[in-house]
Amino acid sequence: MTASLDVPLHDQAGESATTDVAAQVRQVAERAKVASRALATATRATKDAALHALADALVEATAEIVAANAEDLERGRADGLPAGLLDRLELTPERIVGIADALRELAALPDPVGEVVRGSTLPNGLRLRQLRVPMGVVGMIYEARPNVTVDAAGLALKSGNAVILRGGSAAARSNAVIVDVLSRALVARRLPGALVQSIDAWGRPGAVALMHARGLVDVLVPRGGADLIATVVRESTVPVIETGVGNVHVYVDESADLAVALPIILNAKTQRVGVCNAAETLLVHQGVADEFLPAALASLADAGVTIHGDETTLALAPEEVSAVPATDEDWATEYLSLDLAVKVVEDLDEALDHIRRWSSGHTEAIVTRDLAASERFVAEVDSAAVMVNASTRFTDGGQLGLGAEIGISTQKLHARGPMGLAELTTTKWVVQGDGHVRP
Amino acid sequence: MTASLDVPLHDQAGESATTDVAAQVRQVAERAKVASRALATATRATKDAALHALADALVEATAEIVAANAEDLERGRADGLPAGLLDRLELTPERIVGIADALRELAALPDPVGEVVRGSTLPNGLRLRQLRVPMGVVGMIYEARPNVTVDAAGLALKSGNAVILRGGSAAARSNAVIVDVLSRALVARRLPGALVQSIDAWGRPGAVALMHARGLVDVLVPRGGADLIATVVRESTVPVIETGVGNVHVYVDESADLAVALPIILNAKTQRVGVCNAAETLLVHQGVADEFLPAALASLADAGVTIHGDETTLALAPEEVSAVPATDEDWATEYLSLDLAVKVVEDLDEALDHIRRWSSGHTEAIVTRDLAASERFVAEVDSAAVMVNASTRFTDGGQLGLGAEIGISTQKLHARGPMGLAELTTTKWVVQGDGHVRP
Repeated sequence: MTASLDVPLHDQAGESATTDVAAQVRQVAERAKVASRALATATRATKDAALHALADALVEATAEIVAANAEDLERGRADGLPAGLLDRLELTPERIVGIADALRELAALPDPVGEVVRGSTLPNGLRLRQLRVPMGVVGMIYEARPNVTVDAAGLALKSGNAVILRGGSAAARSNAVIVDVLSRALVARRLPGALVQSIDAWGRPGAVALMHARGLVDVLVPRGGADLIATVVRESTVPVIETGVGNVHVYVDESADLAVALPIILNAKTQRVGVCNAAETLLVHQGVADEFLPAALASLADAGVTIHGDETTLALAPEEVSAVPATDEDWATEYLSLDLAVKVVEDLDEALDHIRRWSSGHTEAIVTRDLAASERFVAEVDSAAVMVNASTRFTDGGQLGLGAEIGISTQKLHARGPMGLAELTTTKWVVQGDGHVRP
Repeated sequence: MTASLDVPLHDQAGESATTDVAAQVRQVAERAKVASRALATATRATKDAALHALADALVEATAEIVAANAEDLERGRADGLPAGLLDRLELTPERIVGIADALRELAALPDPVGEVVRGSTLPNGLRLRQLRVPMGVVGMIYEARPNVTVDAAGLALKSGNAVILRGGSAAARSNAVIVDVLSRALVARRLPGALVQSIDAWGRPGAVALMHARGLVDVLVPRGGADLIATVVRESTVPVIETGVGNVHVYVDESADLAVALPIILNAKTQRVGVCNAAETLLVHQGVADEFLPAALASLADAGVTIHGDETTLALAPEEVSAVPATDEDWATEYLSLDLAVKVVEDLDEALDHIRRWSSGHTEAIVTRDLAASERFVAEVDSAAVMVNASTRFTDGGQLGLGAEIGISTQKLHARGPMGLAELTTTKWVVQGDGHVRP
């Protein structure tokens, strides 16, 4: 169950209070661990029925959720939150229906639990299976958007896990009500309410305690800005999956079909801004720069994009294009805005060098008709996803057919790229013998 | 290349020296990163030939290695190392041949790199492949045994990775010579010597710097005692795979074939002592305790095992059996010695409760003829490996057909149970389109 809402959200805890928080958060984690056992062996039918029940409960609680959300919005306005953040924070009856529908879509996905990943009979007759099983307890630390609360709970439940949520303080009232609604709906279906718990009431010390609950929490997924992720990586002794920072490159090769290159960079930059798979840097082979860049820069400018270009790029930019000189900071920046760094490179080698130096390892794309160039790019770019003649915006669990995603991993351990349900599971070796002993 | 051997092994570094060490270790990691690129796209033939060359070079350098090892042994004796540790530290010409042969066996294993893990063509025509690729740079922090130096280097190379080694100070001279031999042999085959580097020369500050080289080192594998592993887990910002602690249980069910149960517990406890997959606790259903325990305890005692029993067990122990009362500490202890905790349980539920409370999640076994009991045990025991009617000693990369292992993971992220070559790789999504953009 959720903690009392009377507890102050920003607890300026002293030493002993921090110890108390740690003990209380460990209790939350212990309840989650116990609850996770009930789900670990639950059938898909049980889990899917629960997801539908959660969806129904959210829609039924629309008035309650919207009222709590209004408090968050009011506080947000008083705190001077930017309009964009307020928009992401807002929950309307229509948005709640959308969030509930996402749970129903999860119910329709196959269950990863029980899949036999590897199996064989060994020469000595031992029967070996490596089975997919739930992690147990998943921790999630994230920022403002309250829909993540429901998404994370749904993904965790479908994959057989309990979840402990630490949302942003800006959405605290919304999240508290949502978690309470979900938890009550689980209890109504005779599942443990502790499968979905929030630790928001314990503020930052609670988040720190969660990061230190090794042995009780099996994995921690931070979702949010670079600062949040860096803090979790540094502080956590619970294994972390790093998500999200995308300094994404599109490289237009000498042999590119320019009629294909233009829609790809436009889509990668402007189809949606402020997402990790949007392009931040365009690299253009010098052999096609004269032909490609003037029109491409004009189209980008028409779409509202500000160009941060190297010298060659600036020289090729039509007068009406808003363009400024690029510095190293531009090559390093994930703008998350209608800005694009543009550089003309000598050849594929220079493009690969640039990507090696500045990429965050999320997604890079090449536009080319040259087989050897595409093969080198695919082999040498060390990123979670490499696109050939396709927009970088496809690095997305839904787009790649994973059905849903809890984040996009930019690290190499456990999961790399979009993380779906399977990435919230681990495996167990099951070995059956007939009295086998080791000689 | 290895650092100069003139640097003191135990550097009591002050603040600025620590900063220097951090910078130097980052340089080591950067060299490893660059070197790893050459290997990432190398063919299996290239890697296998290199492994054979490393094996040849080690055998050729036998005199040099044995001489360095003699220095370590001498220092070890002077420092009063126990005989067991000195034995594990010692390298003889025969042992060097054995270590070299292990490299040749690695060469004979399939290459995990390039395997297509998942693949499909999406409804929109995008061709999707998830490929196995090397991690990049693997860090290894381990204790005395110098054969681990070669094993780790071989596993890393075969899976396409560079490796940075931090061995125990007790084996410092042996490791330095081995790393130098391996590095020179790589260079002779026109591969980068920096694929195998040691940071032993920088002592503990070097190990700490390695733990903080996030972004350069892709994964860190600690192998050694519980203290070493706990330190790495706490300190490291590089993702860690926790290995090894095995508080392993064997449960003899009411329906067990006792003629099968006895060899299994004897094998699990005594076939090899001091290894993580050896049994530490025996749980016996009360329904068979009278029949099973007296003979079993006598056989265990014959094999030199000291019994730490609960009251019922002690009452059933024949007089000649060396038995002492068990406390909670016994249930919690990984003895790694000829000691065994023994408890009579009321039923399967109590066995499962006991395991839940005390197991380290490594391996547990059930001996039973009852299908339902075996299925419940397999489903409810939350460990990396679960054995049915087989010895716990089979939790081993070689025994389970993985060919070789870098350790046994007891965490749930990335790898669980024995880690072979595939567990030293990550994946990359490759998406091929024909100008696809996201609608």
